[in-house]
Order: sequence, then C-alpha cells, then structure tokens
Amino acid sequence: MIKRRAFLKATALTGAGVALTGCSHEKNPLQNININKNKKIKIRLATSWPANFPIMGTGIERFAKRLEIISQHSLRVKVYPKNVLVPALGVFDAASAGAIDAYHSASYFYKGKNEAFNLFTGFPFGMTATEMNAWIDYGGGMQLWRELYAKYNLVPFKGGNTDVQMGGWFKKEINTLADLKGLKMRIPGLGGEVFAKLGVKPTLLPAGEIYVALERNVLDATEWLGPSLDTIMGFQKVAKYYYTGWHEPGSMLSLVFNQKKYHSLSDEHKMMIEMASNELNATMNSEFQAENTKALKAVEEAGAVIKTFPKEILMEAKKSMLEVVAEKSAKSADFKKVWTSAYTFLEENKKWTDIGIKAYLNSRD
Amino acid sequence: MIKRRAFLKATALTGAGVALTGCSHEKNPLQNININKNKKIKIRLATSWPANFPIMGTGIERFAKRLEIISQHSLRVKVYPKNVLVPALGVFDAASAGAIDAYHSASYFYKGKNEAFNLFTGFPFGMTATEMNAWIDYGGGMQLWRELYAKYNLVPFKGGNTDVQMGGWFKKEINTLADLKGLKMRIPGLGGEVFAKLGVKPTLLPAGEIYVALERNVLDATEWLGPSLDTIMGFQKVAKYYYTGWHEPGSMLSLVFNQKKYHSLSDEHKMMIEMASNELNATMNSEFQAENTKALKAVEEAGAVIKTFPKEILMEAKKSMLEVVAEKSAKSADFKKVWTSAYTFLEENKKWTDIGIKAYLNSRD
Repeated sequence: MIKRRAFLKATALTGAGVALTGCSHEKNPLQNININKNKKIKIRLATSWPANFPIMGTGIERFAKRLEIISQHSLRVKVYPKNVLVPALGVFDAASAGAIDAYHSASYFYKGKNEAFNLFTGFPFGMTATEMNAWIDYGGGMQLWRELYAKYNLVPFKGGNTDVQMGGWFKKEINTLADLKGLKMRIPGLGGEVFAKLGVKPTLLPAGEIYVALERNVLDATEWLGPSLDTIMGFQKVAKYYYTGWHEPGSMLSLVFNQKKYHSLSDEHKMMIEMASNELNATMNSEFQAENTKALKAVEEAGAVIKTFPKEILMEAKKSMLEVVAEKSAKSADFKKVWTSAYTFLEENKKWTDIGIKAYLNSRD
Repeated sequence: MIKRRAFLKATALTGAGVALTGCSHEKNPLQNININKNKKIKIRLATSWPANFPIMGTGIERFAKRLEIISQHSLRVKVYPKNVLVPALGVFDAASAGAIDAYHSASYFYKGKNEAFNLFTGFPFGMTATEMNAWIDYGGGMQLWRELYAKYNLVPFKGGNTDVQMGGWFKKEINTLADLKGLKMRIPGLGGEVFAKLGVKPTLLPAGEIYVALERNVLDATEWLGPSLDTIMGFQKVAKYYYTGWHEPGSMLSLVFNQKKYHSLSDEHKMMIEMASNELNATMNSEFQAENTKALKAVEEAGAVIKTFPKEILMEAKKSMLEVVAEKSAKSADFKKVWTSAYTFLEENKKWTDIGIKAYLNSRD
C-alpha cells in the first residue's frame, strides 16, 4: 500500500484545489488527422506522489519528458506533484470533472466510489505483475477497466507495477493465528479487510506517525510497500520481523486521462500515450526489482529477520479473502463482474505460472 | 530455444541474400533536429521468423506498425520475414554490413561470432524476465550490450521475452543422472553444453524433422520453447514427459539497428524506437503468459505428465554450468566481462526475487 495515509493527510490541506484549477479542455481540431506541430497541446497531469518521490514519482516525470520528445513537443506534459494543483487523492475527481487532464495514482485509492476499483490495482493472493499485465493486455482486463472508468469520464492506462509488496513489519514473531488477535496493524485496503477477519485491528495513521507509533508500541505492525521504500521510512529500526507478501502481489498503478481531453487527441497522440504508458509500466517494475535488491542491505544491517507467515495463517487468510469477495460481490454488480473476469483468468494462468516461473525459481537454488 | 534448426536449414537456401540487398544508408540530414514530415525514412527490418510466426513474428509486425503511427509515418518500417531478403540467421551480418537497416532475432544465435552474445539472451539457472529487464535497464547490461555490438556496427534494443522456457519433452521419465547417459536430445546453446557434460548427446536436427525423429525413437528428447509454441509442433503426441525449465529462464530477443542508420536518425526518432522496443519487450512477455496458459489444455488432453528434474540432476547441471562458464571465460575476455556483470547482478537480485515473487508463489497455493 502506497503512502495512503500521507495522501489522506495532504487532502485536508488543499481541499479547495479542484475548484481553483479552471478548465482547459477546449475543442481540439486535430482529431484523427496528423498532428499540426505548430499547435502545442498542454496536458496538465497531477499525481498522488510528492515531487521526486522515488520510482513512482520519478517514473511519471520520465514518462512526461519522453512523451514530449516522441511527440516532437506537440504534447506538453506538465506534471503536478500532490497538493500543488489538487490534493493527492483529489486527482480522480479533478480529472473526472475535467479540471485536470490526467493523473497518476492507484485505482484502489478510490474504492469508496466503486469497490471494483480495488481489482485494477490487485488483490490478496491475486495476480503477479506478469499475470496482471497479461490479464489487462490479453485477458479482457483493459476492456473492463475502460468500460467502468468511462462512467466517470475517464480513460485508464497501465501506470507501473510495484512488484510483490511485502507482508509488513512486525515487532513480535507471528507463529499462530492467536498471535494475530488484537494486533494493532497499519494495513489498509482488501488486505486490511482480510486481516480484520483474522482478529487484527487495522489502524489508520498518517505516514509520518507510523515510525513513532511502532517505536512507542502504539502500533504492533505495519505494512508499507517493499524494501526500496520501506527502508526510507526506517521501519527496519523499530520492528524486527519482516514478513513476505500475500496481500499485494503485483500492484498496478494507473495513468488516467479525462475522457473528453483524450478523445480530442489525434490517433497518433493516443498511440504515443499508450506506448509511453506501456514503457512506464515495464520500466517501473524493473526499477522496483533493482531498488528492492539494493535496499536489502539496510534490512540486513538492521538485523531484521525475514519470515513467511505460517501455512495456518495463509490458509485462513485465503478463506477470509473469499468471504470478503462474496460480501462485495453481493453488494456491487461492478465488483462481481470484474472479479469474475480477474479470478477466472488467475485460476487458469496459475497453471502456467506454477510450471513456469514457480517451478524454475524452486529449481534454481 | 527458438527454431534454431529451422533457421540453419533456411540459411543454406538463400546464402547469397546479403550480397543482393544493396545499400540503403545514404546520408540523412535530420540528425538531432526535429523531424521533417515530408521526408520519409525507410527502415528495412529482417527477422529470423517466418511470416506471421506466433507471438514473436506478430510482435515485430505490431512494433513496426505502431512505430510508423507514432512517427506520423515519417518512419516507414518494412518487415521482411526470414529468407525473403536475407537468410534467417544472416540478419546479423546483413545489418552489420548495412545491407539491411535492422533485424529482430536472438543474440545467442550468433554466439559463433562472440561467446558473450549468449548472455544477452540468457543462461542456464540465470535471470528471469524481470531480472533480465532490471539488469539491462538498471544493472549496466544495456551499456555492455551496446559496447559489444558497437564493434559489429550494431545498436541493440530489447526485443521481447519468451518467459521461462520448458526443460523439454522426454519419452521416458528421468529419475537419476544415469537416465541421462547417452540420451539423444535436441538441445542447442549453453543448455546443450551443460547437458553434454551430464552424458546427454545433443543432436542437431532441422525443425521439421524433430517430431518424426521422436516418433521413431531416433531422438529420445527435445526441448523447444514453452507450451504455446511446443504444442503447435505437436510434441505432446510423441513424448509423454514434459519437464519444467532450467536452461532458458527468461530469454530476451533482440531488436538491432545498423549503427550508421541509427545514428543518422533524429533524437526524436531514436527515442520512438527505444520506446517501441520497450513496449514490444513487455507485451511479448504478457502474450507468452496468456498463450502458454491456453496451450496447457492441449498438453493435458494428450495425457502428458509435467515433471521437474530431480534435485540430483539440477545440482549436477549447476556444477556443469559453472565449468562451461570457466572454459568460456578463459577463452573470451568479452564473455568473462559480460558474465561477471550478469552473474554479480543475478546473485544480488536473487535475494529480492526469493523473498518477493518466489516466497509469494509458494504462499499462494
């Protein structure tokens, strides 16, 4: 889960941002014809990340720069870090209303609007980055995503993948289900809902307060993302046990355009955006691989112990996940529809993943 | 391993192809300035695949089409399937000489020119697709590749990834090292060299003859690629045991430009090519994931049994791999240099892969 609390905190500071941004989506004469290079099209793109935020923030900056170059500067992409133009979690509404042209964020931040949005980021015991990409590109995932977001005047694209996220930092070792009962843990999203069924008390805290809360035993555990970003937060200094992941196995970020703005673009510009988004999606995954590796040094130096949850807990979490899904499916037709597609794809694709990459990794060592 | 025998066979048919192609790399006035749309630049791109070859052939066709569109048709990419302009395995020499502008193939096909070329495709017990991408993008791999190919007047790009390749089809179950002795198997490349040390007799056969050779017991085993392409070859009908992979864990294809042609392009065109190559690389991996999954139905229906090599064999193969590496490092400074970079990166990155994706996949089921 990506600095969700930080976003929420920031939201409070600049709540009026959306109203101030004005309107920039005038009629564009270039639809479906070649690009007039003398006409510069501005794209105001807001993000849910601070300026220069590692990997995710620098990734979208690079996307913007490269999109400008391949368009021969006919697209001018201006990236606004969180809270500059709109609040971190205000980007969805702002782009939906046309107050900004595009944003870079994660779909599950907006699950309050539609529970199905969770599934375009990922879900516990769900798809790896490779499986997610295959579902989006070749399994009907993109079509469902486009259909759903169209209701909100938005056109989504892949926006990067965090790779497997770690299961979190725990002050005490977790050996049995009983060890989870009453545990105060910062864990949002579907993972939090699943863990709540196992007796964990999901606790919401602003990003800047988690470290101190762990240090002072106000919090027993926290998840965040992976070694690359977790070690910047310093969690290895205040929690000894670092558990491997199950709740966000390949979270996809989203790059989303206001529908009217997007449809005003030429076919060439549309394809440039799609291609740059595919590059961003792939490159971010590579960067997380490289940076997570580097960050393991800090984990090791702090004397943290890497553990995997006992089978008993994982089995129970899987059961709880299916309960959570049943509840959401009963309440939301959109959730049910997207879940059916994603889960069917996953169950089929697991077969190849298991004899492909999983068998290989177990053979390698 | 990708239809290598077929390429070799085809090479014999059109050996004079290179000489016939003439020279198309006249001086280009557009370097480092914006693109003049009235000036169309032709790129003659030859491949090592037949026309419409699944995933790899259709992938490069899609690349060409999309590159044309984002360049607003200022780049005109003409794709020539194998043997139309140059022989399947003649593309390296043809692009090196400037007889063609670019090609799509695999680096290890040309290991006869330089043993280090093996490593830009992959190696036994080596990097997964994710690790390979990270090495190329963030681990110095691309720089080494560019330096090495510059000696041959070539500029390489990522050209797709096959995902984990299967360990091959065997007529009899392999339980001990003794079962490998004298086994006639079609397995080329570093995998073949490793298996040869274990007593296997690597056997070269044209693609079209493998099926019949297996059927008639002239061959005891063959590897090819993965379910998607193996089932098209029909191997599930003539060999019962399908072993999981170890020798090509994430083979990267290559998209390569003639150096002079590439350097004659504007910065914008160069970036378009790089971006389209990154998209191709990612999308092909997604497509292999989806198609391998679908093809498992044919594997199952044929009653094939999926097995993993016993630990004893894998351990011995790893030892043999390091012997092969030591031999090649002693003979080739280029091999040694690239191996040192790739192996160092792999050994570090394994740590994250093991607690990231490997731990997750073992937790999922």
